[in-house]
Amino acid sequence: MNSFEKIINLQPEIGNKMYRWAKDLFPVCRSITGDGVRETLNYISENITPLTMHSISSGTKVFDWVIPNEWSINDAWVEDMQGNKIIKFSDNNLHVISYSDPVDKVVSREEMFDHLHTLPNQADAIPYVTSYYENIWGFCCSHNLKEKMKDDMYRVYIDSSKKPGVLNFAEIVIPGETDKEIFLSTYVCHPSMANNELSGPMVTAMLVRLLREIAPLKYTIRVVFIPETIGSIAYISKNLSSMKKNIVAGFNITCVGDDRCYSFLPSRNGHTIADKISEHILSHVDKNYLSYTWRNRGSDERQYCAPGVDLPIVSIMRSKYNEYPEYHTSLDNLDVISPNGLLGGLKAIALAIIAVDVNYCPWTASLCEPMLGKHKLVSNISIKGAGVSGMNIGRDIRGFISMSDGKNDLIDIANFLKISVWKAYSISQVLLKSGLIYSNPKKNYQISD
Amino acid sequence: MNSFEKIINLQPEIGNKMYRWAKDLFPVCRSITGDGVRETLNYISENITPLTMHSISSGTKVFDWVIPNEWSINDAWVEDMQGNKIIKFSDNNLHVISYSDPVDKVVSREEMFDHLHTLPNQADAIPYVTSYYENIWGFCCSHNLKEKMKDDMYRVYIDSSKKPGVLNFAEIVIPGETDKEIFLSTYVCHPSMANNELSGPMVTAMLVRLLREIAPLKYTIRVVFIPETIGSIAYISKNLSSMKKNIVAGFNITCVGDDRCYSFLPSRNGHTIADKISEHILSHVDKNYLSYTWRNRGSDERQYCAPGVDLPIVSIMRSKYNEYPEYHTSLDNLDVISPNGLLGGLKAIALAIIAVDVNYCPWTASLCEPMLGKHKLVSNISIKGAGVSGMNIGRDIRGFISMSDGKNDLIDIANFLKISVWKAYSISQVLLKSGLIYSNPKKNYQISD
Amino acid sequence: MNSFEKIINLQPEIGNKMYRWAKDLFPVCRSITGDGVRETLNYISENITPLTMHSISSGTKVFDWVIPNEWSINDAWVEDMQGNKIIKFSDNNLHVISYSDPVDKVVSREEMFDHLHTLPNQADAIPYVTSYYENIWGFCCSHNLKEKMKDDMYRVYIDSSKKPGVLNFAEIVIPGETDKEIFLSTYVCHPSMANNELSGPMVTAMLVRLLREIAPLKYTIRVVFIPETIGSIAYISKNLSSMKKNIVAGFNITCVGDDRCYSFLPSRNGHTIADKISEHILSHVDKNYLSYTWRNRGSDERQYCAPGVDLPIVSIMRSKYNEYPEYHTSLDNLDVISPNGLLGGLKAIALAIIAVDVNYCPWTASLCEPMLGKHKLVSNISIKGAGVSGMNIGRDIRGFISMSDGKNDLIDIANFLKISVWKAYSISQVLLKSGLIYSNPKKNYQISD
Repeated sequence: MNSFEKIINLQPEIGNKMYRWAKDLFPVCRSITGDGVRETLNYISENITPLTMHSISSGTKVFDWVIPNEWSINDAWVEDMQGNKIIKFSDNNLHVISYSDPVDKVVSREEMFDHLHTLPNQADAIPYVTSYYENIWGFCCSHNLKEKMKDDMYRVYIDSSKKPGVLNFAEIVIPGETDKEIFLSTYVCHPSMANNELSGPMVTAMLVRLLREIAPLKYTIRVVFIPETIGSIAYISKNLSSMKKNIVAGFNITCVGDDRCYSFLPSRNGHTIADKISEHILSHVDKNYLSYTWRNRGSDERQYCAPGVDLPIVSIMRSKYNEYPEYHTSLDNLDVISPNGLLGGLKAIALAIIAVDVNYCPWTASLCEPMLGKHKLVSNISIKGAGVSGMNIGRDIRGFISMSDGKNDLIDIANFLKISVWKAYSISQVLLKSGLIYSNPKKNYQISD
Repeated sequence: MNSFEKIINLQPEIGNKMYRWAKDLFPVCRSITGDGVRETLNYISENITPLTMHSISSGTKVFDWVIPNEWSINDAWVEDMQGNKIIKFSDNNLHVISYSDPVDKVVSREEMFDHLHTLPNQADAIPYVTSYYENIWGFCCSHNLKEKMKDDMYRVYIDSSKKPGVLNFAEIVIPGETDKEIFLSTYVCHPSMANNELSGPMVTAMLVRLLREIAPLKYTIRVVFIPETIGSIAYISKNLSSMKKNIVAGFNITCVGDDRCYSFLPSRNGHTIADKISEHILSHVDKNYLSYTWRNRGSDERQYCAPGVDLPIVSIMRSKYNEYPEYHTSLDNLDVISPNGLLGGLKAIALAIIAVDVNYCPWTASLCEPMLGKHKLVSNISIKGAGVSGMNIGRDIRGFISMSDGKNDLIDIANFLKISVWKAYSISQVLLKSGLIYSNPKKNYQISD
Repeated sequence: MNSFEKIINLQPEIGNKMYRWAKDLFPVCRSITGDGVRETLNYISENITPLTMHSISSGTKVFDWVIPNEWSINDAWVEDMQGNKIIKFSDNNLHVISYSDPVDKVVSREEMFDHLHTLPNQADAIPYVTSYYENIWGFCCSHNLKEKMKDDMYRVYIDSSKKPGVLNFAEIVIPGETDKEIFLSTYVCHPSMANNELSGPMVTAMLVRLLREIAPLKYTIRVVFIPETIGSIAYISKNLSSMKKNIVAGFNITCVGDDRCYSFLPSRNGHTIADKISEHILSHVDKNYLSYTWRNRGSDERQYCAPGVDLPIVSIMRSKYNEYPEYHTSLDNLDVISPNGLLGGLKAIALAIIAVDVNYCPWTASLCEPMLGKHKLVSNISIKGAGVSGMNIGRDIRGFISMSDGKNDLIDIANFLKISVWKAYSISQVLLKSGLIYSNPKKNYQISD
């Protein structure tokens, strides 16, 4: 089995594994810094694939930003006048604004409501609210619950702190035959949410396992697990030159866990090899995949593709952030994702990575069509409509060779033939073995006349 | 108020003024030379904005053409056998062919009809007929009137002359910060017609007043009031080198007075900055504007965009010449145009001029997204669907910055954001002030790693 | 009459002639080598236009191929147990596989059926089967006939041989003013079939007659009559350098005999001058012409446009090979083609050849529009809607000049004006004569100011 076939034949058990890891990590209260991130990275490193840990100190300047202090939280609740704890952090870590200031006082309902966030249009969902860079305190709860809160006074209690510490991230490198890299990035900064958080690192960690099995690849694989935005900005600020020099294609891996659709978000440039390959792969994985534009960006491609950074990085997703109803609420739970959803996300990205890795521009070995019968590739007998499958093989082989001009790559040829790149790759392997095409222009035909 | 806002807020009184001037100038019998042109230019210079007058002598060679003799006309009529003046130049100056030879004789009805032009399909309209370069005499009248002419003989009388003189035109220059120019051209050679004549010079004259108020602009504004075709050819023959060197964008101003639609006629090239900006402006002024092609050309762009001249000159119009029923007939009277129609034409062209003037390619000041909260531009608190208008501002600001790569100009960015260039300009001003973008690549970010 | 007019005015007799030649040649048993090819080439040379004969010896290596032995066949039949000849080569030469091995034995019905080809979906048609490079014996018949064959044993008899000999082809050169060439290729290797065989050489031979009458052209015309595939490969292997150096445009002439539609198959490149001109011509010959893609290739363009060969060669056809029901069966007989079908094919290709030959990029002689009245080209009197035909002439002349910038060729200008290249050519001749355009940039206008 070649690498494409290994991916296509991945078994449901792979999806089950990813789902179980996601279940283990679901309760952890992640944020852009702090224990939640470390706990998550350690779990991955110990249970899935070893990671190299990195940290950057609070206060470090990264481009226009500064690494913030570390946020810790022990407990939080809102108590009514009868002493009933109406809202409890221990029930759901979305109940507290991420990076909330500590508070401990009795306040009027009015004042409490000023600090309580709900979604009137999704009355049973707790919203996910963050305030990393503005010092406020606050709670979140379902709008239904808020409607029932009639007391005049409430006690609000948040036992949190922000202190100098570090921003954590992890990195993995799978060496390839060259220093040129395929870059994978995923984030580990959202609390208890499933599609828009855990699907990303779970699929990415499984990808690392898978690519280690398939290795060595032509390209080096570099993978980062970072907090979103501040993490990618920090990482780019430290590594831009080498990233610009080495990255051939990259994938920002997020929202790859549900089973409703496939989605594509292009790079800012829109015409990189990562874009071209992803669109090809998705059209063969699910011809109804949703194609978004740079206008719909919203994750770390905002940094990776920023002007002057301009890396060839895209996102292949299932239901895209911002586009599914449970997004950024407590409803984005383990029911939203599924083993099959995760497996589909994994396969699509893995196929794209292999397509990047094996892609090249073939050259025909001889001028004019070769005599295929002599090379035992197709029958020498010609009859109209005969042997449909045989004819198609001949047609694809002849079509492949007719496009092997050293300018079209495997994707162009597959698109021309209206076949998948994995089918084009199989044909390519047969033709290379038969000496009918070359991967190297230097060996190319000599004009003889 | 910035310049865009000044234009958008122009009051109805501006439209009324243009309409009153048009009313004053409607009766004048203009042609490509002669008293009518001079009277028109003098009226503008004395009542609206001072003009610099120029003249070129009859007989001067201008490219393939020669400046013709001056044409004068005192009176003209057709009289029946009972001595009734059936057709009178004094009723409507369209009754005589422009540049008609003199005549004074009694002729058969047949012969008279050979020299009488009507429009059978618009039986109540007097057609507008010209014969600048072929010496003939002739009258025009409504087809209805012609049908009633049953006498055997008629006396035809035209008291006109063609003598060596000059071709007149006027010019205005509003100096800008650079010698690069925005060029405006309008014509003053049609007799009593409103949309296809007076709307052009009235809107152009008002534009001059308006741009003088807004001045100084970055670009110099050069404006010419000329007779159509022979005037633009003469002007180009005298000024081509400097025009090619200096003109950044230009507008041929005609048919800008009615209130039925907006129209666009591109340059021959079709992809100049004048084309791009005009299409952007019109799509925001009236998304149903009519877009024509170079096939539909018919005014002085024929000269300004001719092969080898190739200036970036387009037309933003209301109902385009040749495309509305009253065109080139006595029906194109003051009822066709309106204060509001004129004001709409003025605003659209003025917005395009300002867009040309302020346009530039911004550069982000820092790599990756800046931290907008720090710059007090948007809230640091993130919640799904919160503050729709606030979110949009943040979205547009982030989108603007994400496109500020030194290659996209304000129009590209506005088109990307699906907003008007005046909104993009406002965002640009805020970002320049905050130091988040630069207008100058030399100040651009340094890669730090 | 100019060349375009001569072609447009070709009389039905021309179609009749081609049809009569096709009728004469229909019974000949052609293959890629042997007497049938020679008989066909001799017929053309003696009856239509003299050809220069060439041959290449069996065993000669041509790129990836080797010229095969010559195939001869005297007779063949299948006889039942009662001695009835059920299938007779003398009835239809499609009854034997082209290049069939000899055979003479009594075989079981099973074994005979293994060597008998039919088309179950076209039960009354004898299929056309070839096996040039694999040594087998075999018959072809209608499926209906096969269904009636119930005997247990049959005698199969094929008196054929394959011996060292030659591959024949013919060439004609009509010298032009330059060594640059328009290349025509047609094939003479199919037995008794009409649209997919004889229409090609008949139209090509008539084209040679016609072009000799029209000569001298600017370009040299080179024409080859070859066996398909092996013939074009052999020809290219001998002539590639000069072909690449000289060929400006070329046409592979096949399937030009029926009257159902027009079809176009592009070059691999898709944007050569041959493509552009063919698409223009066909859109004016029949706006419903069928446009295929490189995916639908199937004739000698496979060699002429192969990677590294890359010649600007296309096919203008009537019903395309592979796309009409009678294709590659005994049903592709003389009823499929018609004098009118052949004439239509001839005219379309001849118009394209002349269009290639006369094409050039005109330059305006003067800056700005010329004064057309002075040059006696259109009336100086301007009146709305007057003289519709006259106005159109003026409009086309002005449009032609407005596009004469030394970059647009006749086809671009015709496409812009939405007229045929033969109409554009007529305008071009008038304008060249009037000195209003030049064919030579060196004579171009001088900027005077």
